[in-house]
Amino acid sequence: MSEQYIGVFDSGIGGLSVLRELVKNFPHENFLYLGDTARLPYGSKSPEIIRRYSVQLIEYLLKKNVKAIIVACNSASTQVPESHFQNIPIYNVIDPGAAKAVATSKTQKIAVLGTRALVNSQAYTKKILNLSPVAEIFSQACPLFVPLAEEGLDLDPITNLIAYRYIQPLLGHGIDTVVLACTHYPLLKGSIERVTGLSIALVDSGEAISEILRNDFVSMKIQPNTQSTAGKIHIQTTDFSDHYQILAQNILYPQVPSAFEMTHL
Amino acid sequence: MSEQYIGVFDSGIGGLSVLRELVKNFPHENFLYLGDTARLPYGSKSPEIIRRYSVQLIEYLLKKNVKAIIVACNSASTQVPESHFQNIPIYNVIDPGAAKAVATSKTQKIAVLGTRALVNSQAYTKKILNLSPVAEIFSQACPLFVPLAEEGLDLDPITNLIAYRYIQPLLGHGIDTVVLACTHYPLLKGSIERVTGLSIALVDSGEAISEILRNDFVSMKIQPNTQSTAGKIHIQTTDFSDHYQILAQNILYPQVPSAFEMTHL
Repeated sequence: MSEQYIGVFDSGIGGLSVLRELVKNFPHENFLYLGDTARLPYGSKSPEIIRRYSVQLIEYLLKKNVKAIIVACNSASTQVPESHFQNIPIYNVIDPGAAKAVATSKTQKIAVLGTRALVNSQAYTKKILNLSPVAEIFSQACPLFVPLAEEGLDLDPITNLIAYRYIQPLLGHGIDTVVLACTHYPLLKGSIERVTGLSIALVDSGEAISEILRNDFVSMKIQPNTQSTAGKIHIQTTDFSDHYQILAQNILYPQVPSAFEMTHL
Repeated sequence: MSEQYIGVFDSGIGGLSVLRELVKNFPHENFLYLGDTARLPYGSKSPEIIRRYSVQLIEYLLKKNVKAIIVACNSASTQVPESHFQNIPIYNVIDPGAAKAVATSKTQKIAVLGTRALVNSQAYTKKILNLSPVAEIFSQACPLFVPLAEEGLDLDPITNLIAYRYIQPLLGHGIDTVVLACTHYPLLKGSIERVTGLSIALVDSGEAISEILRNDFVSMKIQPNTQSTAGKIHIQTTDFSDHYQILAQNILYPQVPSAFEMTHL
């Protein structure tokens, strides 16, 4: 049992912002992270292609004897409505993000920043309105944020300028909560906060999913790991580059992966 | 014979800058353009993955009875050294680009702008030094240019700023020629020229490959199309999105594709 992993997958390295939160919250768990770097990004792809790739990644993780799977990619989450695959619980990042946004916002005026695919899917709009029919949702596609995060350019003047371009028009609507509806975006939190300021709350998928998992460990929907030592962090990617390995280490720091491997699907 | 196509492939829509030049120069030829939008971009992927995908695209085009194939992607060109596949001539964009740079430059101080994969491959450096051993080559990876081109943001202040960041440090070296060593980059020519000014020549892959093809039509290495009407322009992509279709039409304007289809490899 102690050798079982929690599977986490993403189109690339953005989901490491989710993994970082999970490891921080559940340090005794083993994690197997699968990043589809050979085919990233998903945010500009069609629903059909995102679904096909996501199912491939899930099937790969199921073969690795995982006890739960976290879809650490918002674009993939829109195409994985299932809560179970072969009796293994599957968690998307949209439900917890939408719930946390509704719980956080006092004005119920909520902005959603995401990839073009995510915004087109209206996934957050539907979930938020289900939970809070009076909510007003302002969505903004931010297609340049993913490459900027992949370049590690948080707080760079260029990123600050692009963040201003995307976010400033939303501020006139009286929003008090911004959902970072792409797992890359927490990697640009510095530049985003420069625009949103201190009075607007940012909802981060990694934090939101960690709260859900905490409850499911308590209710024993997922068996917690009983080992007292630190869990393992295995990272697998479908392509390899020095650039991504260095970036992954920076994102996870001070946590250190136990293995970093390339795999073919 | 008049129904034969010239196959052109790229990781996505960037290669349309090459197709645009080809159609302009050879209006009676039929072109079949294949864009691997489901797996773009190639420029951040490893050589092995780029090779595997490129060969899949070539095999797909060979089944379509093409009379020549143009690798309209610099990253893919680094992984396709072959000049023929099953007796069909294959053209990469690096050889003509390197030759044109050497022929254009008076100082033989040449800058090469490309993706990270292209710069790491040193493909242009080797080719240029082969042709001109005295040349000095200054390479610069410009990873944000591809997403900016895909957003259609030429001459946007953000693109101007990023172009300045990448290119300005090169200007001190006395370069007089800049190779746009990624087929996306001609789509940002306005912003790039803002930094390089009028005294620096830009080498565009589409123009360079057109000159080679013109010679090979004359020598009958490739049979020219004898029809007197305008050739067909078929565009196929491995994924479909409205965004890419609109962008493709803008890039090719005033030429209009005769068909725009999605295909699976």
